[in-house]
Amino acid sequence: MMKISARNQLKGTIVDVVRGATTSHVRIDIGGAIVTASITNEAVDELKLAKGQKATAVVKASDVLVAIDG
Amino acid sequence: MMKISARNQLKGTIVDVVRGATTSHVRIDIGGAIVTASITNEAVDELKLAKGQKATAVVKASDVLVAIDG
Amino acid sequence: MMKISARNQLKGTIVDVVRGATTSHVRIDIGGAIVTASITNEAVDELKLAKGQKATAVVKASDVLVAIDG
Amino acid sequence: MMKISARNQLKGTIVDVVRGATTSHVRIDIGGAIVTASITNEAVDELKLAKGQKATAVVKASDVLVAIDG
Amino acid sequence: MMKISARNQLKGTIVDVVRGATTSHVRIDIGGAIVTASITNEAVDELKLAKGQKATAVVKASDVLVAIDG
Amino acid sequence: MMKISARNQLKGTIVDVVRGATTSHVRIDIGGAIVTASITNEAVDELKLAKGQKATAVVKASDVLVAIDG
Repeated sequence: MMKISARNQLKGTIVDVVRGATTSHVRIDIGGAIVTASITNEAVDELKLAKGQKATAVVKASDVLVAIDG
Repeated sequence: MMKISARNQLKGTIVDVVRGATTSHVRIDIGGAIVTASITNEAVDELKLAKGQKATAVVKASDVLVAIDG
Repeated sequence: MMKISARNQLKGTIVDVVRGATTSHVRIDIGGAIVTASITNEAVDELKLAKGQKATAVVKASDVLVAIDG
Repeated sequence: MMKISARNQLKGTIVDVVRGATTSHVRIDIGGAIVTASITNEAVDELKLAKGQKATAVVKASDVLVAIDG
Repeated sequence: MMKISARNQLKGTIVDVVRGATTSHVRIDIGGAIVTASITNEAVDELKLAKGQKATAVVKASDVLVAIDG
Repeated sequence: MMKISARNQLKGTIVDVVRGATTSHVRIDIGGAIVTASITNEAVDELKLAKGQKATAVVKASDVLVAIDG
């Protein structure tokens, strides 16, 4: 079992995979909220990502911004 | 009302703010899952981020990786 | 009015929007210098980004590198 | 002369360098606007970054978000 | 000679350049391992990137995750 | 065995771990070249990262820039 340093690992189910020329968009339902990942087509092929599959959205803490209403 | 291009805007409540020398870690409960953001101390001060506050974790789609068990 | 933690928020005017298969490039004139953003087509549609519109280029401090002549 | 793929290379002058335990914040005046970079202390030492020095803020297009008032 | 703050500057040779609608994938052999960069088509054109060319993969330390078997 | 979408997964051995107030720097020897990762102290603790340990530097393709001499 590989473990990774990223602080954010949100488990869910793939809702859809939209494929572009070199870049795909993978949407994951993490329990109500949807997370969109923009990844290479090669990654989609290698991991055989498809609708209905269990998947985890992984995000490094330094890539998260915080917004407030103010 | 400002709108931002980031595909991922996860609403929640700040659980804690841990302050370092120049970088703080802000943890947001987005409804069960916790998202950790690593941001500057200046941002924490300017937005007056504190435990219990409503906040949104904002992540660009190109900063999301996808992991699977396989 | 939403406020966001990103240290860099450069106000300007959209110069052009070039749309790809899944990813668009938006160029913003921030007062002489041009900033290019690579974002999803969905974001372009949702924010109705178009030439001539006022827009802000938002960049997290941890995504800025520093170069010098040396 | 090294050339780099990043679409955004904003030339300016360093306003200040604030050093933390492992991470420094470097602020660069790019002609009115200030850009803040969060980089390692090692990078600050190696490039001998200091107030008053000419420097370029380098940002990859995929790290730029777009915000609008709406 | 430009110097850049990024801690990771891996020298190698371009193996191939795959061009998409707006985004290209450039693969660089850094001495056995291959590093893939996803950059804009404009950058590919401006730097005239092509197979066989010497190139350096540049990565900011804050964009590196660490994984272990465990 | 977890699989991850990142195109760049460089296997190596940890050379050192330097701990800051909230952020650590982990250096990994990937076979000659050294890769530096800037990650949270929490990640270092959770993965029990230490000198001499096998580890993989993971980088998303969209976080790689390309530089050339020119």
